[in-house]
Amino acid sequence: MIDAKLQSVLSSLAQPAKELGAQSPGRRAPDARYVKLNTNENPFPLPTMVWRSAISALERQYLYPEDDNIGLREAAADAYGLSKDHVIAGNGSSELLALIYRAFLGPGDSVAMISPGFSFNRKLALLQSARLLEVSWIDSHSIPIDQLLFGPAKEAKFILLANPNNPTGTFVSIADIERLVAQSDRLIVLDEAYVDFAPDNGLRLVRRYPNLLLLRTLSKSYAAAGIRVGFGLGHPEIIGRLRNIQNVFNMNIIGQAVGVSILSHRAAYEENHRHIKHERERVAAQLRQFGFGVAPSHTNFLLARVPNGHDGSWWHAALESHGILVAVFADEGLDDCIRISIGTREQMDSFLTAVAAISERMKRDE
Amino acid sequence: MIDAKLQSVLSSLAQPAKELGAQSPGRRAPDARYVKLNTNENPFPLPTMVWRSAISALERQYLYPEDDNIGLREAAADAYGLSKDHVIAGNGSSELLALIYRAFLGPGDSVAMISPGFSFNRKLALLQSARLLEVSWIDSHSIPIDQLLFGPAKEAKFILLANPNNPTGTFVSIADIERLVAQSDRLIVLDEAYVDFAPDNGLRLVRRYPNLLLLRTLSKSYAAAGIRVGFGLGHPEIIGRLRNIQNVFNMNIIGQAVGVSILSHRAAYEENHRHIKHERERVAAQLRQFGFGVAPSHTNFLLARVPNGHDGSWWHAALESHGILVAVFADEGLDDCIRISIGTREQMDSFLTAVAAISERMKRDE
Repeated sequence: MIDAKLQSVLSSLAQPAKELGAQSPGRRAPDARYVKLNTNENPFPLPTMVWRSAISALERQYLYPEDDNIGLREAAADAYGLSKDHVIAGNGSSELLALIYRAFLGPGDSVAMISPGFSFNRKLALLQSARLLEVSWIDSHSIPIDQLLFGPAKEAKFILLANPNNPTGTFVSIADIERLVAQSDRLIVLDEAYVDFAPDNGLRLVRRYPNLLLLRTLSKSYAAAGIRVGFGLGHPEIIGRLRNIQNVFNMNIIGQAVGVSILSHRAAYEENHRHIKHERERVAAQLRQFGFGVAPSHTNFLLARVPNGHDGSWWHAALESHGILVAVFADEGLDDCIRISIGTREQMDSFLTAVAAISERMKRDE
Repeated sequence: MIDAKLQSVLSSLAQPAKELGAQSPGRRAPDARYVKLNTNENPFPLPTMVWRSAISALERQYLYPEDDNIGLREAAADAYGLSKDHVIAGNGSSELLALIYRAFLGPGDSVAMISPGFSFNRKLALLQSARLLEVSWIDSHSIPIDQLLFGPAKEAKFILLANPNNPTGTFVSIADIERLVAQSDRLIVLDEAYVDFAPDNGLRLVRRYPNLLLLRTLSKSYAAAGIRVGFGLGHPEIIGRLRNIQNVFNMNIIGQAVGVSILSHRAAYEENHRHIKHERERVAAQLRQFGFGVAPSHTNFLLARVPNGHDGSWWHAALESHGILVAVFADEGLDDCIRISIGTREQMDSFLTAVAAISERMKRDE
């Protein structure tokens, strides 16, 4: 009887949920003894003032959070030189990305994404019964504007790109971004998760182009991945549509309070940003000496092509046996790469020591 | 040029987002001087052990939260006598409700809800281009099983009800719930947000019926509305489908840590539950003396029919002028009611003093 009832309920599922099937068990967090350089976190403590605001918010834990994240959106508007109507806030930019998919895609529609990009986009497209058109863009340091505006991507309801890009670490000029936005009548969603480590950003385009939607996060440059705070910045009419389909009370009071406080104390993070950029260049130089190919990075990570003889997965395993976690990718053209997040001086020294030991062993084995 | 581009982007919106339009400005939180009895919060501080776990989690703020909320789901499984595969966790049960809509409803589908219920359901149905079939159920203390299984609701992909119900405060026997679940082959979503103030609950039915999905929250009986922690409890195959369409890293580390800690220290809340139930009966008795009609409640609120002469909105305004906030409803049959959350002894004394003053003035004005 249980089975018949279960089958009946499963047959009531809508098509996307049916096709996607059930979630496999999640991955547990790695042992804290690992040097964790695989997900671009930024191991920097909360500044004292931000810490205090979190403690103070905890005392109001029994009250519902503020409706529509008003205070947090105002703080972001102040920080970014916009009005709160230009801002939507969510549990990381991933929540906002999911909202954009829901707002713009119906069955049979399509979205274009610079590839390789955030793999969660494939699932988001499936959930809308929509198609994800991936426009390949590995080696170039400018945007493939023609491919995005014409060709198969022409039908896309919106276009996704990241600047700086992940996992390549490359940065294209804002003039390039502006050309794309100016030439297109479709929504351009520009993920600027890593922009605080780059030389420029697209904020000044937001008021100029109603078809531009910027995504920002406090996860990377503000060291708050665990608090889940992201923003969408765009034309008030577009932002209003997204706010209207967002869950009620989506963020908790700690997300709201820590978000407001970080945005009000951004100066406290400048030393951290200087440190990350300095370590990034130091590690890149060392890796080149070990025979890695390291492209210039404008983020808090490095994408490094490993020396001849082994692929990225081999290095991943070798580093893991030294207690170091880095990221590898299945995408075409990236199988001989590893991505290394930039952390503390001590973490990076441990990484470089492991690379030295592995390189030494490789030489002996030759 | 801006207008043409904006119109072009708006025309790319999918039908539901187009129809729903833009969000109006959110409501700011009321002045803290008000006695806030309008949203069924529970003004009880975090127990010391829970507080400590929140502080300790804050020190890991730079790390992403645990994937798929594994630890939190395990804690809920322990507390509810299930396995973690029976549990999905979200930012309040509202996030889980939205996931259920996404999983089960496509364009033209329908969902049945006992009415009056949570008004957010209307928007959730619109977002799926689906119909919400509201089955009226104000005065009865048993479930309208025939109306839910036959009649217009027969086509519903799933059926929503709350026990105890909000805003009526009524509770139906679990035997009644079981009859509905046993007789139906569709998913029954049972919201038990207030169940810790009631004499029984539906937990024992979860393993027995794969078409039952319970919703639980820490917002009411565990005084954590601001932390946003809710659970869905059901058959692992159904739960797995919902987890698979959930956003990555949906909850932050504070939601996870506070959730785990509250579930491990439930005994610390027993005194609070006794207090709420005691105050509820004290306030109900007093209100009856002032001429209110108060139905028995199995929640942390009272639905009170106001004395002849004025409607609920009048009382709402009169109480607000005394610094007291209560809830009123536009639904048919509820316009002469106010809903009063049960808070501290001091808050309820303030409320009763205001009711006495307003009643006195009414008599003088007669």
